[in-house]
Formats: sequence, C-alpha cells, structure tokens
Amino acid sequence: MTQPTRTADAALDQAQAITEDEIFTAHLGGKLSVELTNPLDDRRDLSIAYTPGVAQVSRAIAEQPELANSHTWASRLVAVVSDGTAVLGLGDIGASASLPVMEGKSALFKRFAGLNSIPIVLDTTDPDEIVETILRISPSFGAVNLEDISAPRCFEIERRLIEALDMPVMHDDQHGTAVVVLAALLNAAKVTGKQLESLRAVISGAGAAGIAVADMLLASGISDVIVLDSKGALHTGREDIEGVKRQMAEQSNPRGIAGGTDAALAGADVFIGVSSSQVPEAHIAAMSEGSIVFALSNPDPEIHPEIARKHAAVVATGRSDFPNQINNVLAFPGIFRGALDAGAKRITIEMKIAAAEAIAALVPEPTADLIVPNPFTPGVADAVARAVLEQA
Amino acid sequence: MTQPTRTADAALDQAQAITEDEIFTAHLGGKLSVELTNPLDDRRDLSIAYTPGVAQVSRAIAEQPELANSHTWASRLVAVVSDGTAVLGLGDIGASASLPVMEGKSALFKRFAGLNSIPIVLDTTDPDEIVETILRISPSFGAVNLEDISAPRCFEIERRLIEALDMPVMHDDQHGTAVVVLAALLNAAKVTGKQLESLRAVISGAGAAGIAVADMLLASGISDVIVLDSKGALHTGREDIEGVKRQMAEQSNPRGIAGGTDAALAGADVFIGVSSSQVPEAHIAAMSEGSIVFALSNPDPEIHPEIARKHAAVVATGRSDFPNQINNVLAFPGIFRGALDAGAKRITIEMKIAAAEAIAALVPEPTADLIVPNPFTPGVADAVARAVLEQA
Repeated sequence: MTQPTRTADAALDQAQAITEDEIFTAHLGGKLSVELTNPLDDRRDLSIAYTPGVAQVSRAIAEQPELANSHTWASRLVAVVSDGTAVLGLGDIGASASLPVMEGKSALFKRFAGLNSIPIVLDTTDPDEIVETILRISPSFGAVNLEDISAPRCFEIERRLIEALDMPVMHDDQHGTAVVVLAALLNAAKVTGKQLESLRAVISGAGAAGIAVADMLLASGISDVIVLDSKGALHTGREDIEGVKRQMAEQSNPRGIAGGTDAALAGADVFIGVSSSQVPEAHIAAMSEGSIVFALSNPDPEIHPEIARKHAAVVATGRSDFPNQINNVLAFPGIFRGALDAGAKRITIEMKIAAAEAIAALVPEPTADLIVPNPFTPGVADAVARAVLEQA
Repeated sequence: MTQPTRTADAALDQAQAITEDEIFTAHLGGKLSVELTNPLDDRRDLSIAYTPGVAQVSRAIAEQPELANSHTWASRLVAVVSDGTAVLGLGDIGASASLPVMEGKSALFKRFAGLNSIPIVLDTTDPDEIVETILRISPSFGAVNLEDISAPRCFEIERRLIEALDMPVMHDDQHGTAVVVLAALLNAAKVTGKQLESLRAVISGAGAAGIAVADMLLASGISDVIVLDSKGALHTGREDIEGVKRQMAEQSNPRGIAGGTDAALAGADVFIGVSSSQVPEAHIAAMSEGSIVFALSNPDPEIHPEIARKHAAVVATGRSDFPNQINNVLAFPGIFRGALDAGAKRITIEMKIAAAEAIAALVPEPTADLIVPNPFTPGVADAVARAVLEQA
C-alpha cells in the first residue's frame, strides 16, 4: 500500500508494526534506573562517597548553600510531576496509571538533553495541596516539569509554583506544545509566503494547549487570534466563561467573531486543532488561499490530514505516520537544559519564542511536507538549549 | 607506624589518605544519574516507550492497579527521605546540606542491593507536614528509608508512616543500627562464651539508635537492659522523662538502677555507646570479666578502642580504621530488598532479627577482631535479603 504523503520513516514504522506484547515487555520493571556516577568498589570509595568523607561536603553546603548547586545532583534534576488527571487522551486515570507516561518523559529528558529526571506522581488533585507538596520537596530538585494536569487547575498550579519557586517550572502540555506549534507556523508561513503578524489564526480548544498556543501567537505579534471552546468562539460578550477563558476573550478575537468553526474559519489563514472535536471539511475549504492546518489531536486528528491537504497548503498533525509531526519532544528537553545551563529562575516567554525560532531554523528550507525537524535529528536539543541560554 | 589491632584494609586506607580535594571532586555534579533501561534510538522505540504505545500500559494500570507493580519502576524504588535535622554528627544542617548524604545512601542501595533509590529532602521539619507530604507523593515509590531525622520526632514520623502506608518504611538510624549491633553481639557472645539472654547490657544514648537497639535486645530475649540519656539511667522513678523514654523506662532496667555509667556498668557484660558522651576508663574496667564494648560514636568513640581493649574481650566501633566496624550498610540494603522481594507491607521485628542472624552467620568462626563481615564481603545483602524474605 503506497501513500505518497507518508515519509520513509513512517513507512518503516508501519512495516514493523508494534505489538501489544512488545509494549508491555518493554515496560516490565519500569523504564528507568538510578546509577552511580563514580565506582564504589572498596572501603576507600565508601569513605569518599559516604561517611566520613561526605560529612565535609554536607558541612560545606551548610556554611555556603550555593555549593549545593555544584556538589549535588539536585540543581540539574528535573521533577516530572503529575496528578494523573489528564493523561494523554485517557483523562483522569490517577497517579499510578500516569507513571508509565512520566517515566517515559524522564527517559526523553535523558535521551535528548542528558538531564536527570524523576517522576513524582501525586495522591492528591487539590491545587493547594499540589503546590504545597511540591514546595516542601523542592530542595530535592532543580526544575519542575508539570505534566498531564487537567485544565483549568493546571493554570493556577503552574502560576503559583512559578511565583513561589526560584527554579524553572513549566507545564509542558501548555508551553511545549505552544513552542513547537510556533516553530511549525514560522516555517509554514515561509512555505506559503505569508507574513506571520498578518495571519488570521483560529484555535479549536481552550484547554491547557489551546490557551498556551494562543498566548504564544499573541506574544509573537499575531493579533487576529480566535480561540474556540466546546460552545464556540471566546469573545467578550460571552457570559458563560470565567478565569483564563475570560482573560483570553479580552485579549483575542479583535473582530468579535461569535459562533463555531464555520464563522471563525471563513477566510482564516491558520487552523490549529487541540481539542478532540472534529471540524467539517467544508469549514476547512472556506479558509483563505494557501491555508495552514495543524490538526493535532491524537490519535484522531480534527480532520484527516489527507482531506485537509486537498484545501490547505501545509498540513501538520500530532502523529508520526504523517508528515510534519508536532511533537513536544522537540522543545522541552532543550528548554529545560537551556534554562538550567543559564541558572535561570524562570522560563520566560522570550525564551520560549527563542526556542521556537531555533527549532524552525533547523529546517533551513522548509517545504509543505517538512516544516519541523524529526525528534532524532541530531542537535535539536542543543540548538534549543543554546537559544534559551542566550535569551536568558 | 605499626598498629597491630588495625586490619590490612585499614592500613591501606591510612596509606592512601583521602584528601579534601578528592572528596569534593568526587561530589561534583552529584553522585547519581537516572538512566534508561531500554534503548531509545528511533521513532519506533519512541512509540513504545512514549506515545502512542505507553497509553496502553497506562490504560491497563487504570483498569488493573496491581499492574503498576510489574510495569513501572515505582514498586521497587526506595525513597530516601530526610528533613536534614540530624545529619551524621553535624546536627540540624537543613535539607540541601543533607543531600550529599542522601545521594550516598541511594548509591549504597544500588551498589549493595541493586535497588533504585531517590533522595527526597524536605523543606519542613513539622512531623504532620512530613507525614502528609510523604503520603501525597507515595504513589511514586515502593518503600521509604527515613534518614537523619532527629529524635524524638523520628519515632512519631516512622510510626505514623508505617500505619498509613502499605509499603516497607524504616528509619535506618534506628533499625539499621540495631540490626548490625545485634549481629555483632551474637558473635561477640559466641567469642566470650556468654549466653545472649543472660547478658547485662548498658546502652548510653536514648536517641534514635539507643532506643532502637534497646528494643532489639529486649525482643531478642535480653531482659537486663539499661538505657542512659544525658541525665543517667532511664528508670520508672524519673519524673523528667516522657514519650518513648518513659515507655523504655517501663520496659527496661528491671533492677531499677539509677545514676550514670558508673552505677550502670558495674558488673555489666555489654556496653553500647550511641551518644557522643565519653565514658571513663574506670567504668569500663568495672564491667564483668570478658566484657563486650561497642563504642559507636563517630568520629570519636565513647572510649578509645585500644583503651577499651585493655579491659574488654571484644571491642567494636563505628570506624573503618579499627576492627569490628558496626556499619549500617551491612543491613539496610538487604532488609529493603528482602522486604520488596517478599512484597511485604511492613518490616517486622522478626525480619530485623532474621537479618541480624544472617549477618552474624557470615562470620562462621568469629574472633575478638572479627565479629561482623566487611561491607564488601560478597553476598552480604543477598544473605540478609533471603533471611528477610523467608521471615516474611
């Protein structure tokens, strides 16, 4: 079966179909291990790594707290924290069931950025308790990657942790996605010959990813952004929205569009789907000439990419078996490493934009089927880390 | 310089003196790393370890929670938890300064028992908050090693965690020490030809280690145990003691001895020092014929071992440069591994006694200068784990 829009890699994936057995076997005993950085082979090693030698290091840190940054692993250790309330597309499956995902995330931190990372899953879903718990264990690590925490709780939890902790904190479902979307959009605009700032963009989904993508587009100078939740476009006239959605209504939708994707997409340049709701082909067909469609829901994109491609100039998905996979792994390893390399206490919007530009620049001559690099392209995390470091 | 009571290993340690520089260099960047158990080299690996494959494992755990035991690392992961209030001999130096010790402890768990382990240091010293915090992060791991938490808070924290968690919880400063002391005492009694149950034992120090050692000796059938705090022997007539010390006064000291080490040690068979207070040579000299002296304070034993040896038949310390080092590392790695292998929800006193017997049995023909194995003797943790598993 030949499908011209699929890449060679994807074809290979298909050829070697992954069985359930293989997946479960690969997870037996977990995907991580803790290892020693120095040998511990005799009494002498023991006297250095443990008593009595270690007492000198502890005493030195007690007298000069910044030595903890150089002489423990904590300052470069990323805690991957979840309460298991919004795990992949599976929803609120709880802390233990979220663990394989968090272990996977820690594996990616190591594989792509060389960072140590530990999964911390929580037996509470109360935002106050989550914030309090992370603050209490915070001397154990140097950065916090929040993961798979449901909206709108994720916004408050992230905001409060950023305020309270002097270390990088990022909810990856929001900002990792937003960074890669911006990277892809920079190159898609190049391919279609459109100016970024003048794009009319429509985002379907007002959860963690949707709000963060909208914030990112607005911060990048795109003024005509419309965000839709399940009831339609967010606009200031809506009385059924509050909190983050209310704020977004005030910052976006300058033309005050009301209604669903039919109204929002008419003449729009960009569609970004980050909800699981389908969008009819006719609405995509009604977009402007040379339109850009990112249908990112997994496993079922908001519109099948081959159908979208009939109307749009550039199409991306969240899947690895179609061209242009929008994959967070392009962003978060390098963002955290850059922030840690810089000793940054915050991950700023400027750093995120710099990260997006660095990812986009890894595809010097983008085409309709190649707007973002493959996660295994050598040097992605290095380039992102460097851009973040320079911005910090 | 020849010192006949020093072992060859110790002489080697002396010959290759450890410099401060060497210690600090070995700690640069920390002593631990998190590694992947499977390669992550291409998109296919990524699809197995992370999305979309991982979703199948998460969904399976959500439906069948016990699968978290086999398909994540958490069920065999030991959290090494400290609030930094009683770190080695350094006292209350805080969470960050305790980290090198906790990293060292995690390194020992890996090196001696093959167990994964992560340091969790806490920015709170309130027992309620400590218990609450550990409960909230408890889906992240499978066992808790409490470490360097000051008395009497350590007793309450351990008790409440044991009650609340269905996983092995042990404060190593208490029970690790007690297990190795009992192991050493079993062999010391053999060397001196004395019956364990009929020993008269005096413990100087009523903190974490002292109370746990006393509990262990009482549980092993030794009825004549006297515990001293800084004001002298605990006895039921004392009105200045409460809590754990009051309980101990009621369970121990059957002859109602009052006063200091002079009164307690007259005619005693065993002295166990786990405070940092010195004991005069005359008091040791007044012990029974063939006495046993464990002067365990570090770096300064309660009495210099060479002076003690003039009066006692067997002498042990906590130091590696004298014979008979009482070292927790003989016990905790195997105890936790045995408990985890057994799927035990508690570490019982029977398991601890079995562990002590297993350690003692590793020295089949004990002598005055060899009552406990060297930590690097092959098979220590295996033997301890097996004994604990059989008991569980």
